[in-house]
Amino acid sequence: MIRQPQRFSDAHFAPVLARFVQRQPLVHCMTNDVVQNITANVLLALNASPAMVIDPDEAAQFAAVADALLINVGTLTRDRRDAMLAAAQAANAAQKPWVLDPVAVGALTLRTAFCQQLLPLRPAAVRGNASEILALAQQGGGGRGVDTQHQAEAALEAARELAQRHQTLVAISGEVDYVTDGVETLSVPGGSALMTRVVGTGCALSAVVAAFCSLPGERLSNIASACRVMALAGERAAAQTGAPGSFATLFIDALWQQAQEARA
Amino acid sequence: MIRQPQRFSDAHFAPVLARFVQRQPLVHCMTNDVVQNITANVLLALNASPAMVIDPDEAAQFAAVADALLINVGTLTRDRRDAMLAAAQAANAAQKPWVLDPVAVGALTLRTAFCQQLLPLRPAAVRGNASEILALAQQGGGGRGVDTQHQAEAALEAARELAQRHQTLVAISGEVDYVTDGVETLSVPGGSALMTRVVGTGCALSAVVAAFCSLPGERLSNIASACRVMALAGERAAAQTGAPGSFATLFIDALWQQAQEARA
Amino acid sequence: MIRQPQRFSDAHFAPVLARFVQRQPLVHCMTNDVVQNITANVLLALNASPAMVIDPDEAAQFAAVADALLINVGTLTRDRRDAMLAAAQAANAAQKPWVLDPVAVGALTLRTAFCQQLLPLRPAAVRGNASEILALAQQGGGGRGVDTQHQAEAALEAARELAQRHQTLVAISGEVDYVTDGVETLSVPGGSALMTRVVGTGCALSAVVAAFCSLPGERLSNIASACRVMALAGERAAAQTGAPGSFATLFIDALWQQAQEARA
Repeated sequence: MIRQPQRFSDAHFAPVLARFVQRQPLVHCMTNDVVQNITANVLLALNASPAMVIDPDEAAQFAAVADALLINVGTLTRDRRDAMLAAAQAANAAQKPWVLDPVAVGALTLRTAFCQQLLPLRPAAVRGNASEILALAQQGGGGRGVDTQHQAEAALEAARELAQRHQTLVAISGEVDYVTDGVETLSVPGGSALMTRVVGTGCALSAVVAAFCSLPGERLSNIASACRVMALAGERAAAQTGAPGSFATLFIDALWQQAQEARA
Repeated sequence: MIRQPQRFSDAHFAPVLARFVQRQPLVHCMTNDVVQNITANVLLALNASPAMVIDPDEAAQFAAVADALLINVGTLTRDRRDAMLAAAQAANAAQKPWVLDPVAVGALTLRTAFCQQLLPLRPAAVRGNASEILALAQQGGGGRGVDTQHQAEAALEAARELAQRHQTLVAISGEVDYVTDGVETLSVPGGSALMTRVVGTGCALSAVVAAFCSLPGERLSNIASACRVMALAGERAAAQTGAPGSFATLFIDALWQQAQEARA
Repeated sequence: MIRQPQRFSDAHFAPVLARFVQRQPLVHCMTNDVVQNITANVLLALNASPAMVIDPDEAAQFAAVADALLINVGTLTRDRRDAMLAAAQAANAAQKPWVLDPVAVGALTLRTAFCQQLLPLRPAAVRGNASEILALAQQGGGGRGVDTQHQAEAALEAARELAQRHQTLVAISGEVDYVTDGVETLSVPGGSALMTRVVGTGCALSAVVAAFCSLPGERLSNIASACRVMALAGERAAAQTGAPGSFATLFIDALWQQAQEARA
């Protein structure tokens, strides 16, 4: 039985963030060329540790050492695909969670085939925007055709299908974020439209989702907490500026402030 | 008959920027490792959309979908060369404009040969500094030997030759920018010396030039508008700070403010 | 005879920085994907020039032209390894200094083998944190086993061994930096804990070390000056903010200010 989305409460969020900041997860990020810097700085601001390792042998070695792995296909190449596959398999062998960010999946052939190859390897979570989640679900044959590309309702249904089919959790980013395991769905409000005007906030969220997947406790709440810490940082930064350059700076500061508050 | 440079007027600039902000071009950026982030954030601040796609097959697919393509050879490799070539050909087949940024062309062999291979594929524009435009024109056999490497006059003459030989437009960046189609030349004053102390302002300009090439209307004016929006952002940022770290932030903010003003 | 560390004095630092700013070294940076941007901006703020060239042929060509070369193995691949090797050999042939940053050397096999391959090529300096210097010394067979991974004393002893064995200089980054040639050791205090919360400050320091290695004069002092200019920038930035986003911006500004003061 599928339930209506429930709003994720800050009462649940606070202890998860406190645990996160205390544990300082080490996150192996195999991500695209554009967002390496902001991904690392977002994790560092949250008291986590990023590491980017991309050679196939080293990536497999490191995936077993890190607390979590992110695979983001934004600037996929054949070489990177092979390294990412080795890393996902090594993470599975070491029982470490890994997260898929299916950037621009759908029309582009290499990444679309690769995402379909990855899904059976049981990611702990998939994080994308509505279009990506819809495309991913449809490629797999489970979608029913959607009229409007960004229809949030349709994406949520696609997310539930995807979660059930692959026994994973799916996070959809948008004005309101949704996190679902196929049955339960949490909604996470907040954020700022300026987040869409700074490259990498979505990709960095996927790294944060991976990091939160390494925590003990209920994974649905943990992933919703990842969305919430980013949304709150967006709100705090947007309260101080209306332009994206200074927003990017204040966004990192706001993540750091939340981490400091969670430590206190 | 070659005409003297004419100063590009802000009366011509304003409607072009308004059209740009309204159309929100999607720009396929195949650019170097160092400037991916600033390139994307510059485009986002101007209400455009960046996308970096680098696998040869995907790059060709995406070049046909995007409104314009940028090829920047800053961190060229043999693999990237092949993907860029496939993308330029796909852009041509789809009648989408593409722009060449010949970073450091001249002494380094791979990129110099590649730029000569690309020029016959008729870029909509070439954007470089004086040294690069001189090197590019001389490599092609049309140059006459130049004594001082950065002589603006000689670069302008080289730019005109290059534009005529390859039926393209050439933009030279410097204290004053010049844009020429080989006959008409527009001069674009403005900017700030601090732009040379932030990596990627020139490379990002090339992406903006590509984006403006997707607009209808006279291409010479459109490219001059790309130069002008960046120069004005530099001036506004330099009015607020004298140091490059905060300048980089304020530069993005100033692009955004111009985009907001053009929407109003 | 090994001497106790001596504190590097600002009286020695000032003239080195003045010389640096005047000479504006051109630094060939072969570094990892994550830190390209901050590395370039740090060098530009110090009035130096960065250039990233990565194709094997071009890298060898450029290493002979640049004033110094940095090799950072953070996101090593087999292709990059070959290009780095060609560049180091070309730098040696042209009598240009090159610097090794052995990021995360030890457990990861490709980079560990590669660092051992590079050391006999006589880098002008090696710059790493305590763990990396320990791992590098131990891999070479000279280490004696260390109980605690970050023990500063043990790292300093490993650094001395490494410096003597390979006739190089070694800089260890930490709360206090140490620079040693195996006999003399300079200590460089300063900096800020926030530097560890901004990705790339250590990697950028290695680029700055490479740049300072191109100066005439005593190399031990020159490298200590590289450490000192970064530490001072960290202190100045930390005096103005307590959060890493704005710290990163102010850090660049503080480098620039030091360069301006050294010019005056």
